[in-house]
Amino acid sequence: MRVADDDIAFAHRLADAAGLAIRPYFRAPHGLEIKSDESPVTLADRAAEQAMRALIEAERPEDGIVGEEFGVRAGTNGRQWVLDPIDGTRAFISGRPIFGTLIALVVERWPMIGVIDQPIARERWTGAVGRATTFNGAPATTRACATLGDALLATTSPALFDDGQLHAFEHLDAAARSTVLGGDCYNYACVASGWLDVVVEAGLKLHDFAALAPIVEGAGGRMCDWQGDPLTADSPGEVIAAGDPARVDEIIELLACRGHSHG
Amino acid sequence: MRVADDDIAFAHRLADAAGLAIRPYFRAPHGLEIKSDESPVTLADRAAEQAMRALIEAERPEDGIVGEEFGVRAGTNGRQWVLDPIDGTRAFISGRPIFGTLIALVVERWPMIGVIDQPIARERWTGAVGRATTFNGAPATTRACATLGDALLATTSPALFDDGQLHAFEHLDAAARSTVLGGDCYNYACVASGWLDVVVEAGLKLHDFAALAPIVEGAGGRMCDWQGDPLTADSPGEVIAAGDPARVDEIIELLACRGHSHG
Repeated sequence: MRVADDDIAFAHRLADAAGLAIRPYFRAPHGLEIKSDESPVTLADRAAEQAMRALIEAERPEDGIVGEEFGVRAGTNGRQWVLDPIDGTRAFISGRPIFGTLIALVVERWPMIGVIDQPIARERWTGAVGRATTFNGAPATTRACATLGDALLATTSPALFDDGQLHAFEHLDAAARSTVLGGDCYNYACVASGWLDVVVEAGLKLHDFAALAPIVEGAGGRMCDWQGDPLTADSPGEVIAAGDPARVDEIIELLACRGHSHG
Repeated sequence: MRVADDDIAFAHRLADAAGLAIRPYFRAPHGLEIKSDESPVTLADRAAEQAMRALIEAERPEDGIVGEEFGVRAGTNGRQWVLDPIDGTRAFISGRPIFGTLIALVVERWPMIGVIDQPIARERWTGAVGRATTFNGAPATTRACATLGDALLATTSPALFDDGQLHAFEHLDAAARSTVLGGDCYNYACVASGWLDVVVEAGLKLHDFAALAPIVEGAGGRMCDWQGDPLTADSPGEVIAAGDPARVDEIIELLACRGHSHG
């Protein structure tokens, strides 16, 4: 299945619309939260998803929508736009310009197009199956990672793992060169650009991960679940992103140990 | 003791020089690390500290220097420029534009001026004892936080605590509304701007914390160690930053419990 130029252009227009809706709420004055009864991030989330849904409903009425805020609208053609207007809510409310808008086109359960858009720094990563990933229009490529001991690893928070997942992650953490916390979707963008080597997370929903795989894979990396299976709309939400596909088997092996291994 | 305009202007020039030295190394092409035998962050760190030291030696020959990379140069007048060219090394190497250059003027062991400079996003927070903190030249103020249950808490990584400190932190984490990880010096800047409520960390060196107190306090917040004592050059490196000074006593009380409290 070939991704159409027109669908990629439409994904960019969705990201533009979301950014326009989000920017006024970032670092909003202290009083806004109280005045409106809703937090700035909730207002931004809703405004951005509404802007994107309006475009899809007007121009792609047969496509379905899966949105983080407003749920599912069934389509009639096996295509779904999967939307997470603000991935990295805590980063957003903390004033960090490293949250992102995630947009994916999923066709017959497979993520075909992905966009990670950072609307404050105006950074955008775009990936599509069979195409080279771009960062603000220029090619983005992952970097080689000769051994896991060289790997710069990221995960948003150990608190997002259950006990077994946390033990598994600790094995990987011990094997890697260094681990950086926080980051949300921005970490996967950094893998695509060759600044990070590995991201491992769990508990992700479809709207959290659908956009990521086309971006990481189109940059030369690999994304899969903790069993090594490719990510589809039915994946369980345990994800691995590796800039160097040669490291994936070792990562899976380390993550397979979910019990205590400490003396 | 009054802070001189001239010293604040000089601190800005130091930050300008550091930013100029750092920018070429951020997100440097993949090959740079191998070619030079040094990582981009090490090169950036050294280049930035050298640029700042050269300015101080040329224009303030009687002032001392405490630098993260090149150590101490004794002064003759009780004044020291305390420099951390890149605070947030892992953020820098991960491609996240939320690391910072820290510059402090310490006089007779007391931090009098602080600068947190983010040279990629070109964001700068400047504080001085007795003056209002600024963010890119405009006033920055912390926000009120009615209860700890409303507090947005940040810490760079739980792995930076020892066991007792981690248990103490977990009490605070459980009491706060939400906790965000990563961030380094950027978290303190976000407290000064009223986007975060509390930062708690341990194991900080003088160059990590000297710049922070004038910025947070000049914005209406409070900084102290885990016993509630103000930060000086002799502080032990366990720090609290609170946007609302009214919450500090409760934070200290929670952090005082360093043993297990779990059933």
